[in-house]
Amino acid sequence: MGSAIDTLRESLGTISDLSRASSLLAWDERTQMPPGGAEPRAEGLSTLARIHHERLTADELGERLDAAAAEADGAPYESAEASLIRVTRREWEKARKVPASLRAEITRTTSLAEHAWVKAREDSDFAAFLPHLEKVIELRRQYVECFAPYEHVYDPLLDDFEPGMKTATLVPLLTALRDGLVPIIERVAASPQLDDSPLRGHFDLSTQRTLARAVLETLPLGKGEWRLDDTVHPFATAIAPTDVRITTRFDTGYLGEGLYAVMHEAGHGMYENGMPAELHRTPLQGGASMGFHESQSRLWENWVGRGRPYLRWALPMLREHFGEQLGDVDAEALYRAANRVEPSLIRVEADELTYNLHIALRFELEVEIFEERLELADLPDAWNERMETYLGIQVPDDAHGVLQDVHWGAGAFGYFPTYSLGNVIAGQLWDSAQRAMPDLEERIERGELAELNAWLRESLYRHGSCFEPLELIERVVGGPLDVGPLVAHLDAKFGELYG
Amino acid sequence: MGSAIDTLRESLGTISDLSRASSLLAWDERTQMPPGGAEPRAEGLSTLARIHHERLTADELGERLDAAAAEADGAPYESAEASLIRVTRREWEKARKVPASLRAEITRTTSLAEHAWVKAREDSDFAAFLPHLEKVIELRRQYVECFAPYEHVYDPLLDDFEPGMKTATLVPLLTALRDGLVPIIERVAASPQLDDSPLRGHFDLSTQRTLARAVLETLPLGKGEWRLDDTVHPFATAIAPTDVRITTRFDTGYLGEGLYAVMHEAGHGMYENGMPAELHRTPLQGGASMGFHESQSRLWENWVGRGRPYLRWALPMLREHFGEQLGDVDAEALYRAANRVEPSLIRVEADELTYNLHIALRFELEVEIFEERLELADLPDAWNERMETYLGIQVPDDAHGVLQDVHWGAGAFGYFPTYSLGNVIAGQLWDSAQRAMPDLEERIERGELAELNAWLRESLYRHGSCFEPLELIERVVGGPLDVGPLVAHLDAKFGELYG
Repeated sequence: MGSAIDTLRESLGTISDLSRASSLLAWDERTQMPPGGAEPRAEGLSTLARIHHERLTADELGERLDAAAAEADGAPYESAEASLIRVTRREWEKARKVPASLRAEITRTTSLAEHAWVKAREDSDFAAFLPHLEKVIELRRQYVECFAPYEHVYDPLLDDFEPGMKTATLVPLLTALRDGLVPIIERVAASPQLDDSPLRGHFDLSTQRTLARAVLETLPLGKGEWRLDDTVHPFATAIAPTDVRITTRFDTGYLGEGLYAVMHEAGHGMYENGMPAELHRTPLQGGASMGFHESQSRLWENWVGRGRPYLRWALPMLREHFGEQLGDVDAEALYRAANRVEPSLIRVEADELTYNLHIALRFELEVEIFEERLELADLPDAWNERMETYLGIQVPDDAHGVLQDVHWGAGAFGYFPTYSLGNVIAGQLWDSAQRAMPDLEERIERGELAELNAWLRESLYRHGSCFEPLELIERVVGGPLDVGPLVAHLDAKFGELYG
Repeated sequence: MGSAIDTLRESLGTISDLSRASSLLAWDERTQMPPGGAEPRAEGLSTLARIHHERLTADELGERLDAAAAEADGAPYESAEASLIRVTRREWEKARKVPASLRAEITRTTSLAEHAWVKAREDSDFAAFLPHLEKVIELRRQYVECFAPYEHVYDPLLDDFEPGMKTATLVPLLTALRDGLVPIIERVAASPQLDDSPLRGHFDLSTQRTLARAVLETLPLGKGEWRLDDTVHPFATAIAPTDVRITTRFDTGYLGEGLYAVMHEAGHGMYENGMPAELHRTPLQGGASMGFHESQSRLWENWVGRGRPYLRWALPMLREHFGEQLGDVDAEALYRAANRVEPSLIRVEADELTYNLHIALRFELEVEIFEERLELADLPDAWNERMETYLGIQVPDDAHGVLQDVHWGAGAFGYFPTYSLGNVIAGQLWDSAQRAMPDLEERIERGELAELNAWLRESLYRHGSCFEPLELIERVVGGPLDVGPLVAHLDAKFGELYG
């Protein structure tokens, strides 16, 4: 006879397998599937999601949770057992609070809204998208009510991506970040521009693929535990911690596109790859939140990949593949090219410095919408005004403004701030890593990346999602969320680069 | 409110989606997965199989079946409703007859036996495999007893691959086939050998891949509804009728390997691709039996692909890719090279003519084992004797004899005869197709393959698995299973080729 905790683990293993199977179906859809598979794939994904939800909300799981809790009574908060029970109960309770009918309605409505968004963006026609957005937000309000009482109407939305985090914590944080960045961006804008021509030219697709693979092979990813594929919108997914799928896209005119998409997605991949074996097939396996996940992609993309030490080390490898284009480029020129700042209209094309203002704008608008301080019809104007204030640029049309992202049509309110949270956390982690390894930059310049990965495994990855983000940041860096390190890093870096 | 039949379809859609998800996991495992994914993939596949089995054996499905049957009372046997209810009930009843404990025991034991087989084959050590084989067969006997009473002990095994077919039907059929082939093989063996050097030499891997894709593009597979990948043991699988995954392997020293694996697997693929939309997400979607499936792979591989008209048409395409090797080869030389007969030890390497004797031998041994007329310890001797009698060759060791196939270790008794059934059925279908399209060969010589596909869709594919194989053959060719057309085809073809 197994223990109550083993019986609970059995249920959780099934639930985890179902969600990993969905991940594979989704990865396949975006990288391998012939176009003819689209409609049946939607059915397959919807069936797996339904069975997953049935299992997660089952009375049986609640009974097993109770039995396991009784058995583990007195186990310390940090223990694997207590964490497993705590996190599972949280997910079970959350999942049971939303009626199946509302979930189904949200799925249907966002699916239609996403299609309408594609068309509206093509036509730059916000009015055509507006009725869909209204319905999506109305349903999201109903969703929020499932979690009443709450401190702030935006809290339940945020909670889906950052468990336990409150709007009251986030608002001052992202406001401070915005206020810290605006003057840096102004100073940069007033300085002579950097030259990114070393990364521009013609870069053959298949050589870029070979280079991307070579880059991944030098990163501390488990051997035989990852693969790389082309896709339209880069992402990383773990079918298992030992089966990480990294995807990227390439631009034959700009080497930075594919290179940094690979570094970014590899960061996500290393986090998943670093999950300890004892968390497998439980809800503790995987990143602690979207923000923590993004901290890993940003850390490897920006702090490592766009850093001077890494680029010094990587230049010979880049030259090996693109000797003609990079033969005469030195490490400093490459460093400058990889860090050119240019306020721009489109978030996904933004540089390391201005990116967070794109997020600040979206986050502020989301909060105002849910606080009913902003009419949806006024959204384009509010967007355009803020683009001018924060980034000093004029939005020519809604396709390049309020209609650029898929998130709102897809119903993903509360998601955007996690991108900036990721940058904030990455800044704090980098600070701690530097304190723990004073020779970190020298190591990176020698291509020794394993130590950084080992530190991240030991400090962060081993916790999986045992702790909520605010608990976790305390455990890892010994303090609360703090925009200081990020702002200081950006100020120092771009201060030097732009003189 | 939906009708009872719609409610039934809902359950069946879920069951079908689960099995398609498993197919994708299995395809990915064999074509894409990094090695690190192996262990979690086994867990994922086992979870999906368990949930699939739970749903298929659920009381609820039985109730929905009863309700649908009451609603469809009086629907003609051929109707979609009656077929759906009949086939679902058959599967539901079969699945419920086998206790979960026995299924689990079979899974565990065959998994161990398969590993033991790999090692035993490496060492050519039948004695090491024998205790595993004994356990597997003991469990298969218990499995058979779940279906008592039966006419013949082998019937329930056969039924898993050929629904409704009886050993009493198969024995005289495969005996007649064996007796028809032995004299043809003797005459061929006494004739001067054909030269297959045109297909031998060095054939660059990536050019072979390009050629394979070009070949597939000329076959009547739906545009955007298939893909081709490399694998170790070629197979085809349909994630959906419009999402067919073909796999192959290539031999840089022998062009025939990859080319005919592709034609073979494409045959399986076209069958699935030809399923009518109204059968989607029901148990009626998919081939009627393993034998019918194999009839399609063999028809496209052998009757089309190794036929003179197709090779005349295909030669320019082959030359386009391998001009150096095939520039001086004419269609007749290519035809002879693709049809060289050579009795050999290994089934999977056997030619079109001798292949069926490899099957006859295995089928006869399987029946004798289950009839308890053959001791397992005597299996190698029995194998070797028959290889000498049927094919005139001596077996040097068990690795090249009784240990060559994975099937028995995997517990798949009753599977082998379906390979020969496929050839028999292909012979009958080809005969009917020629009667329906007197200019079939001229069309093929012009590369017009769509008409043959259209005829197969109309005659065979549209039925999915609505009918049992013995009913279906009557419907398609207007008569019972008959080895005559196959034997006549082989006699005529190899009589001419070998003079």
